Amino acid sequence: MTERMKNEIESLIGSARDVMVCSVDGQGYPNVKAMFNIAHEGLKTFYLSTNTSSLRVGQFMKNPKSSLYFCNHELFQGFMLIGNMEVLQGDDIKHRFWQEGWEMYYPLGVTDPDYCILRFTAQSGNYYHNLQKQTFNIT
Amino acid sequence: MTERMKNEIESLIGSARDVMVCSVDGQGYPNVKAMFNIAHEGLKTFYLSTNTSSLRVGQFMKNPKSSLYFCNHELFQGFMLIGNMEVLQGDDIKHRFWQEGWEMYYPLGVTDPDYCILRFTAQSGNYYHNLQKQTFNIT
Repeated sequence: MTERMKNEIESLIGSARDVMVCSVDGQGYPNVKAMFNIAHEGLKTFYLSTNTSSLRVGQFMKNPKSSLYFCNHELFQGFMLIGNMEVLQGDDIKHRFWQEGWEMYYPLGVTDPDYCILRFTAQSGNYYHNLQKQTFNIT
Repeated sequence: MTERMKNEIESLIGSARDVMVCSVDGQGYPNVKAMFNIAHEGLKTFYLSTNTSSLRVGQFMKNPKSSLYFCNHELFQGFMLIGNMEVLQGDDIKHRFWQEGWEMYYPLGVTDPDYCILRFTAQSGNYYHNLQKQTFNIT
């Protein structure tokens, strides 16, 4: 990956409020939902927040295969990461990412059993820009 | 589905320039890409255009399981359809959807073998709005 491409991808991820999160359901169909992009470490690890009771969490507990997708329509940029998703419910991790106002989603607050964190670990990436595509491994 | 929900969903689809299109790759991982939302008939049938040589077309030829996703971040609206994707390469269908300027994507024009149409047929829908979710069959 060139330095320029790395900068473009980091800017794309940084400017995206949401990320598309994909899973595979019990019948083998791909599912997708926009989630808040709460934190990430390079291109390898991404943290998302969602309801423990949600359909997606149940799917990831049975099948961790996942992908994330960031896109900017105006710049014709798309970046997909393929990897695996873990469902984290420990108190430490939940406190680490809790944000002001999330009582709207999790009425019982940071200890709400319906609040959990998803951790995505990337294996490979696919960057599309200006009608060109590049695929690479993420180590 | 109530009349109001139907109107909201139709407005969401009508205002979306792009749709997120999901497939499952050869290793069982979900993949996703933004594509142009070129035409649709109600909530049952959607037409998309892409390159025949693209990764997604190869995936759909082996595994038609798919989903489409429309979302509006500002209105907290998301609509996912689960269904199957067909790859169409007949001249009639290619002429029907060809648009001025697409030589940018398919240099040989409407008869470019790299130009093809995808047809998605929905089985069920999942509408998310204002923290509420509703699932229904599409007949």
